[in-house]
Amino acid sequence: MREVCVIGVGMSKWGEVWRMSLRDLHTQAALNAIEKAGVDHLDSLYVGCMSSGIFVGQEHLASLLTDYMGMPGLPGMRVESACASGGLAFRLAFIEVASGISDMVMASGVEKMTDCSGEEATQALAAAADQENEVFHGATFPGLYAMMAHAHMAKYGTTRDMLSAVAVKNHSNGAKNPDAQYPFEISMDQVAKSVMIADPLHILDCSPITDGAAAVIVTTVDIAKKMGKPYIKVLGSGVGTDTIALAQREDMTTIKAATIAADTAFKMAGKTIKDVNFAELHDCFTIAEIAVSESIGLFEPGQGGPAALAGETALDGSFPINSSGGLKSKGHPVGATGVAQIVEVYKQLTGQAEKGRQIPGSPKIAMTQNMGGSGGSSVVHILEVA
Amino acid sequence: MREVCVIGVGMSKWGEVWRMSLRDLHTQAALNAIEKAGVDHLDSLYVGCMSSGIFVGQEHLASLLTDYMGMPGLPGMRVESACASGGLAFRLAFIEVASGISDMVMASGVEKMTDCSGEEATQALAAAADQENEVFHGATFPGLYAMMAHAHMAKYGTTRDMLSAVAVKNHSNGAKNPDAQYPFEISMDQVAKSVMIADPLHILDCSPITDGAAAVIVTTVDIAKKMGKPYIKVLGSGVGTDTIALAQREDMTTIKAATIAADTAFKMAGKTIKDVNFAELHDCFTIAEIAVSESIGLFEPGQGGPAALAGETALDGSFPINSSGGLKSKGHPVGATGVAQIVEVYKQLTGQAEKGRQIPGSPKIAMTQNMGGSGGSSVVHILEVA
Repeated sequence: MREVCVIGVGMSKWGEVWRMSLRDLHTQAALNAIEKAGVDHLDSLYVGCMSSGIFVGQEHLASLLTDYMGMPGLPGMRVESACASGGLAFRLAFIEVASGISDMVMASGVEKMTDCSGEEATQALAAAADQENEVFHGATFPGLYAMMAHAHMAKYGTTRDMLSAVAVKNHSNGAKNPDAQYPFEISMDQVAKSVMIADPLHILDCSPITDGAAAVIVTTVDIAKKMGKPYIKVLGSGVGTDTIALAQREDMTTIKAATIAADTAFKMAGKTIKDVNFAELHDCFTIAEIAVSESIGLFEPGQGGPAALAGETALDGSFPINSSGGLKSKGHPVGATGVAQIVEVYKQLTGQAEKGRQIPGSPKIAMTQNMGGSGGSSVVHILEVA
Repeated sequence: MREVCVIGVGMSKWGEVWRMSLRDLHTQAALNAIEKAGVDHLDSLYVGCMSSGIFVGQEHLASLLTDYMGMPGLPGMRVESACASGGLAFRLAFIEVASGISDMVMASGVEKMTDCSGEEATQALAAAADQENEVFHGATFPGLYAMMAHAHMAKYGTTRDMLSAVAVKNHSNGAKNPDAQYPFEISMDQVAKSVMIADPLHILDCSPITDGAAAVIVTTVDIAKKMGKPYIKVLGSGVGTDTIALAQREDMTTIKAATIAADTAFKMAGKTIKDVNFAELHDCFTIAEIAVSESIGLFEPGQGGPAALAGETALDGSFPINSSGGLKSKGHPVGATGVAQIVEVYKQLTGQAEKGRQIPGSPKIAMTQNMGGSGGSSVVHILEVA
């Protein structure tokens, strides 16, 4: 397998982007990435998207998006694993370049989520849960993650303040990110007093519904060196799954799919969590960030909440998590999220993060963890600056 | 890149399978393939599915299907390129094994299409066309392919009888296939007198709506040899796209995405169409088989129709097409079709096709061509028996 790296990244506008359709959002991110990377040619496109079919009645994105990039003919692949679709697109681009089949591949992600009512969006997102055994009976994701939060609180004593600390930290980071949907700070008090969605989760524990796209250019280290571009190397890649229905799991307080994905990625990289300087983790709900930070081996079970509360995962903490603002503040266009995590890691590792947002101490190795459903699938990557 | 092959195949029941859900159909095909291949372990799953979101409200198949195969934890990837989703799943399984990342990968496809009304199914399938510029204005696939047929007739003099000959031949083959949804013969007269759908296409020019799944096991040639299983080698793989909207094409009578995919696959294989003994082509409509047989270089433009009428593509012709019965008679559960093409080629090349269906003359090399939308994407594979 060849050494693979990322040489350029691009984002579309993120938020409630009423004046842009799915194809516009994707084209904006794709052309931005092409321009940043300075490439004049692609060999193929992998696009992550969860549910363009339900959201906007459009499947067949491989044809649509290559067409609107002005590249009809380009081999295109759409991949889906619910909210982990973007991470999966990046993994498959990595494999295609590593295999030698292609030299220059775009991994992108997109979701257009606001061309429907909130109820319809909730229904579309629920397609990531078990339709027959969860959704049919009324379960939606806030409810499923609320059960995980209650279980975590009962087993480990995780508190309201610990959950709030995650949201406050991520908004503090996102406030400095020009790409964020909600670039403002919030207080512990605001989180605790915000509208209750599914006890114990308030609305400020939840990531928002977002329109947006992200794209990165993947190539070999040899080509990147010849081009003289800043690049970050892909050291490891892993995917894991778990039962789709939460009720089938042995333990609701841990994300086994993330553990499998992280173990696989670390094994490929020849690294451990101790070698990693910071991470983008999948904080679709505040409890998710806490559970994942434990599941990947960063903290002992039950210590993720206290660590967040103590500021260990802040921008200037011992292990910053979600310097981008995370899904919570930056937004969560589900198919794009996993690719946007790579965008953030690229910016941080190459020293291109915006003012006030750069992680101190010149970090060298980063990790991304993207997750589908209530943890039914997860994708992890380990990346290193050259 | 390592040498890659197929060592086992499996099918679910195909048809209007009211008593099985999407997960049941997939599990049946997957377990059949595992049993036939005699493997006790998988490294990952690639599943092709076009629109489980719209059809049955279920995305996140990577988690659902690995779970229901009894393998929660297994890395899973769902890929989509409309009706070419299955071909794409096979391609990505091939790349993952070729790259050295995995040794034993399942490529599968599934679609559950009859848990909704005919209108809803037409709407779901239309998501493969350009939502904004085709579907919004009322176009559906029978209409789009009817325009291609009219253009082909006007440019090349293709006739009603030539279209009918494709349907008659495919039903003649499908009548001998126990997996076929419509395993019976039809006459030229029956096709021409069947209900008009979109002039000039009658209902017997159209492939049906089908529930079904298919699965194959992909591994290295080295492992297949050690296992002592019959296998077929993957010589070449190609993907191409084209504009999603039919109106944007220079020429409606040819499928450029198929030409690109075939050229790429032949180049990788170091072969030409003259080396190929038979093919499974994407006959979603009779005109599609004719246009594709020209687009891949088998016949000169305009000669696909006369060749079909002359019996050149029959089971005992010079170049048999769709010995399985094709989409027309075997059925077309869209995400599964591309994988079922590999199933048929495996059976034919290893001499395991059912009685009366085996292509004479011990064929050595076969081709599969899978297609999305009105030709917006296509996937081609070249396979050889060891």
